[in-house]
Amino acid sequence: MSTLITNIGELTTNEPGEGRRAGAALVLDGDRVVWTGPAASAPAADERFDAGGRAVLPGWVDSHTHLVFAGDRTAEFEARMAGRAYTAGGIATTVDATRAATDDELAATVRRHVAEAVAQGTTHVETKTGYGLTTADELRSARIAARYADETTFLGAHLVPPGSAADDYVALVCGEMLDAVAPHVRWADVFCERGAFDADQSRAVLEAAAARGLGLRVHGNQLGEGPGVRLAVELGAASVDHCTYLSAADVEALAGSNTVATLLPACDLSTRQSLAPARALLDAGATVALASNCNPGSSYTTSMAYCVTTAVLQMRMTVEEAVYAATRAGGIALDRDDIGHLAVGARADVHVLDAPSTTHLAYRPGVPLTHAVWRKGERVR
Amino acid sequence: MSTLITNIGELTTNEPGEGRRAGAALVLDGDRVVWTGPAASAPAADERFDAGGRAVLPGWVDSHTHLVFAGDRTAEFEARMAGRAYTAGGIATTVDATRAATDDELAATVRRHVAEAVAQGTTHVETKTGYGLTTADELRSARIAARYADETTFLGAHLVPPGSAADDYVALVCGEMLDAVAPHVRWADVFCERGAFDADQSRAVLEAAAARGLGLRVHGNQLGEGPGVRLAVELGAASVDHCTYLSAADVEALAGSNTVATLLPACDLSTRQSLAPARALLDAGATVALASNCNPGSSYTTSMAYCVTTAVLQMRMTVEEAVYAATRAGGIALDRDDIGHLAVGARADVHVLDAPSTTHLAYRPGVPLTHAVWRKGERVR
Ligand SMILES: [Zn+2]
Ligand SMILES: [Zn+2]
Repeated sequence: MSTLITNIGELTTNEPGEGRRAGAALVLDGDRVVWTGPAASAPAADERFDAGGRAVLPGWVDSHTHLVFAGDRTAEFEARMAGRAYTAGGIATTVDATRAATDDELAATVRRHVAEAVAQGTTHVETKTGYGLTTADELRSARIAARYADETTFLGAHLVPPGSAADDYVALVCGEMLDAVAPHVRWADVFCERGAFDADQSRAVLEAAAARGLGLRVHGNQLGEGPGVRLAVELGAASVDHCTYLSAADVEALAGSNTVATLLPACDLSTRQSLAPARALLDAGATVALASNCNPGSSYTTSMAYCVTTAVLQMRMTVEEAVYAATRAGGIALDRDDIGHLAVGARADVHVLDAPSTTHLAYRPGVPLTHAVWRKGERVR
Repeated sequence: MSTLITNIGELTTNEPGEGRRAGAALVLDGDRVVWTGPAASAPAADERFDAGGRAVLPGWVDSHTHLVFAGDRTAEFEARMAGRAYTAGGIATTVDATRAATDDELAATVRRHVAEAVAQGTTHVETKTGYGLTTADELRSARIAARYADETTFLGAHLVPPGSAADDYVALVCGEMLDAVAPHVRWADVFCERGAFDADQSRAVLEAAAARGLGLRVHGNQLGEGPGVRLAVELGAASVDHCTYLSAADVEALAGSNTVATLLPACDLSTRQSLAPARALLDAGATVALASNCNPGSSYTTSMAYCVTTAVLQMRMTVEEAVYAATRAGGIALDRDDIGHLAVGARADVHVLDAPSTTHLAYRPGVPLTHAVWRKGERVR
């Protein structure tokens, strides 16, 4: 079943040198893009979708979320916003609730948030374990994540569970836990930050994961400068995420590497931190991705549009840079060539905006602009 | 036809001392709220709406928009975001396009944007003239605005049209133009800012309008400190809007007055200015409202939720303060007792969120959360 998408006001393919094109059309067949070119020479297709002059772009690639969770942290967020102390908060709250939840409850939460994201134009979702922190709970988190998300990451090294000694816990993560979880995930990640895992501990986790054939990701430089970025670059991680506090050497290291700097602006704002230095990274030549970091503690949003809006209005990214960062660069951060762009052979992940131009994603902050979505060739909205 | 809204997770009435209540219900009849109280003692009604544990609050009151416009300024916005010079821009571009548009085109634009706002939970919209700047064009703008918006404001003093002498234009605004437009509007407004109208010119316009019985509003202190706030307070304007740059004396003057400080955060961000000093105003005791300032140049959004999100995440307003500012305080800025709260006798303007708490408006940035809307008692979404 092929679909011709025509009457496109502006097409963003993310192909090198193409920019935003007028007068283009697109044909999807099965789960792939099979043709792009001038509308006038488009081939016949089984179905025709008239975009009505709207902008068409690849679906959002959300390369960083934490959707396998249970429990509620609304009160903690509200206290933070009101400047009130809140002692019961933190990741450990979510760990307790996640361990206590049934598989069905966890599955429903992942499914609901993926559906919410898809309804807003997201077509590829990475999600992580990290609220289980026992072998059994990390394993079931990975299995549930793999059922509903497109990519799954093992984040046993999210924090040292209360009551455990750090080195013992790292040994568990690198040994029994990794052995159990590795068959169910493509990636491993570590929260390399003061209060979580230091450089040596992080290195141990990442090297153990690499030895099992997993790709590497790092949470780094969220709360202050630290070793996360350096370690990610040294070990060839696909992505280092947060990058809120970077030294000049960190920026240079990222620019000289294949490691993507994944920025999480909704998290920066939801925790009242500074916004990450996107302009310095781009100007140095680093690859910058944007992701939601959807999680109930520090960034409870599935809105990639909000990330793009914020990047343009407040981080001095251009519209093109921000859209690329939320689509193609997200694909690069997941080491995939088949997503985040609309070339022949790429996945049929298509987002039609209710606007004539992707510029409206920043020009019209907060206005819901998703008009139609195809995910793996299937019309899902 | 009465409707009982029940199974409300959290009810915000904006009544003094009530806070956010659990276990409450609401009855609408015609265009009014006719009952609120504990769900257990709710009276019978013709229809029953099960809110499913969701949060219920008054519809947004958007007390500041400019919807009677034509033309496109996407390229100007994009250039500003990319840091490129753009010489053809500015309000005058919109004035040219608005004068050239037909009545039907202008009406369609107002109607479309009001509908877009209502779909996001806005139930009361103020809009302004100000892109006509001739007697005939201001008059038709006012007539068209009055057809689709809930409140209409004369903003002939938006800028001095190119080719006119400022004093001649002020005389026109205060004389013939005001005579023609006054019967069709409730409010008059002036853009009191360097490059637009100075204190004397602004005073002349406002005094002439007051003499015709119009209520007063002021655009002031948007681009720098200036006389706008002082003038608004002195003349008893219902609202002074923008307030991005305030002296300590301005804050004090507002706190000691009945003039509402209406903040326009989407405008501040879309023009890459600072955000207005909400915290200082609230701490001093001023009444703070939030509005969209929807217009194609400096703030092209209808999203009151985006304003609330920004106010909480970035302006240090609490959730309660931001929600009040976008509902009840908007009503006060329009000198109306019947909107922005849910008491018996108030207008049946009700917003049901797809979330258990209004906290989610900030906790879930960018996620569209409007579940159901009643406007003047009519279910519109
Ligand atoms: Zn994360
Ligand atoms: Zn305005």
